[in-house]
Amino acid sequence: MGGASFPLTVVNQIEPAIGPLIAQVDSRIRVVNQARDVSEPWKTEGADILLTGPSTAWKNAPATPPATWRPARWVQIASAGTDGFPQWFLEAQPVSTGRGNAAVPIAEYVLLAMLAHARRFEIFRVSSPQEWSQQGSAVKYDAPLPTLSGQTLGLAGYGAIGREVARLARSFGMEVRVWRRSPWLDGEEAREGVQAVRDLGTLFGEANHLVLALPLTDETNRIVDRDVLSRSRPGLHLVNVARGALIDDDALLESLDRGLLAAATLDVTSPEPPPAGHRFYTHPGIRLTPHVSWSGPSVAAHLRERITRNIENFLHGRPLESLLDPRRGY
Amino acid sequence: MGGASFPLTVVNQIEPAIGPLIAQVDSRIRVVNQARDVSEPWKTEGADILLTGPSTAWKNAPATPPATWRPARWVQIASAGTDGFPQWFLEAQPVSTGRGNAAVPIAEYVLLAMLAHARRFEIFRVSSPQEWSQQGSAVKYDAPLPTLSGQTLGLAGYGAIGREVARLARSFGMEVRVWRRSPWLDGEEAREGVQAVRDLGTLFGEANHLVLALPLTDETNRIVDRDVLSRSRPGLHLVNVARGALIDDDALLESLDRGLLAAATLDVTSPEPPPAGHRFYTHPGIRLTPHVSWSGPSVAAHLRERITRNIENFLHGRPLESLLDPRRGY
Repeated sequence: MGGASFPLTVVNQIEPAIGPLIAQVDSRIRVVNQARDVSEPWKTEGADILLTGPSTAWKNAPATPPATWRPARWVQIASAGTDGFPQWFLEAQPVSTGRGNAAVPIAEYVLLAMLAHARRFEIFRVSSPQEWSQQGSAVKYDAPLPTLSGQTLGLAGYGAIGREVARLARSFGMEVRVWRRSPWLDGEEAREGVQAVRDLGTLFGEANHLVLALPLTDETNRIVDRDVLSRSRPGLHLVNVARGALIDDDALLESLDRGLLAAATLDVTSPEPPPAGHRFYTHPGIRLTPHVSWSGPSVAAHLRERITRNIENFLHGRPLESLLDPRRGY
Repeated sequence: MGGASFPLTVVNQIEPAIGPLIAQVDSRIRVVNQARDVSEPWKTEGADILLTGPSTAWKNAPATPPATWRPARWVQIASAGTDGFPQWFLEAQPVSTGRGNAAVPIAEYVLLAMLAHARRFEIFRVSSPQEWSQQGSAVKYDAPLPTLSGQTLGLAGYGAIGREVARLARSFGMEVRVWRRSPWLDGEEAREGVQAVRDLGTLFGEANHLVLALPLTDETNRIVDRDVLSRSRPGLHLVNVARGALIDDDALLESLDRGLLAAATLDVTSPEPPPAGHRFYTHPGIRLTPHVSWSGPSVAAHLRERITRNIENFLHGRPLESLLDPRRGY
């Protein structure tokens, strides 16, 4: 990857505010700002460094590298997921990601989804005295509303998002079980206050709320299939804040219809948006939000800081933060 | 209050399951079970101990003691609030309350209310591809959704509920400011990780979310008046899990209409339910739930444990837990 050598050009497709920050790191760096929605984001005209983010153009990129394209020396992407970029692009040069930047807003979304499900908040918007009395008396002293306290969270994936969800869930008095693909270090579970679970089906069998917080790779594609869903603990609430393609949609709808699952909160789908008439729009057990869980006031600032630090790392020939492992796919 | 002397009769209007627990403490105690909704709950025929809860009958009790009524030696009530009982009854004998028993479910309700407001969850129930794209693109990279992390919670009241709300809010990275009427001990604020605020108006001026968690007394009746509301920080979200009569309803609606407040989540109103046609049922800034925040799976168990401990305390002449101070009204 090498250290600094000038002239050095950064093509910035993320946001203009990043330009001056890079100039502060080293005024000899030349920054070329492009629009966030540029139609051919791979046309970087020999940039040394490319700062880019997911877009419709990247999603519909050619299957093979365009003739005029040249790899950069390093690419920083804004998102945590890399599934919106073509493989030829991800493999051509070191790519660092935005992973972890949105952990706090996503974890808040997950807690909101779990609380709304447990406390049945939606059914309690009363609009008349009759409804007030009816809804109120449905909650009896001897048939109380559930609380997160005492329930079990099943976490599939244990990166920055999973850890932040686990931390908040524990403060609510939830038991946290985790399935992840990376091995656990000695004593790591106890230190983190979680319990490791052997496989995803077991996790579905033990959880009141099952949160998908793992990257989409060849291995995880449709990992939530009919078999895994069939092992769900009665009343399970599934939350997907990762990628829609982790789930077999037909199997999910079937499991909801058969009452194996109670509900699913989906911030992501495949494709996005789901096509007109898709049952996700109307199924009473589905709560659908338009891929917004990542949104929070500190996300842009965290990305700017990461870019600035990574520019410094690059200039000094040091390892880059949040570097993609193309073999694992995240 | 004196120690044990038999025969000793407990009239139990809370739930039949309590009877056998009392027998376990001392088999010489005679338990008389009455229905939860008994029409004259003060007719206890000379019971030594009365276990009772809020009811329509108590709310509509005579203004002066009925001729046949005799005070018990001790009364345990199921609720935290005593405002549903006549004053002559509360003053006639020692009364211990259910305060703190529902702190966990109520705190979860408050966190749900705050998250739902901050993350604008309600507007994100999309039902078509058009709505998905429209709602999704309303959340921009440079106009993100708020997070609780970094926001300020204003707590009016700092009993068991306030403390549990504060604990959870801090784990979300909120700043917690508290106004309470009792004086602070030396160093107490720092130990609790909160900041004391001088008066309620100041608290309204500093908070993103203002949570009412204080008892209804002569002093706190309509304490949230036009003057206090006029000092609200722009965008304030008010949450009431205490008693409806803490708020001047007309002033609240006026403040919402004028945009001083953004929203109010009300689990309690005065009266309950609000009369037909009340604006609480239809105002877009009001989220109304039918007094259910207290409901949780451990509440009954906590009450049973408290009753058992207090029966033991009573038998041994020891001080009762959660005893009402009739002078303060809680």
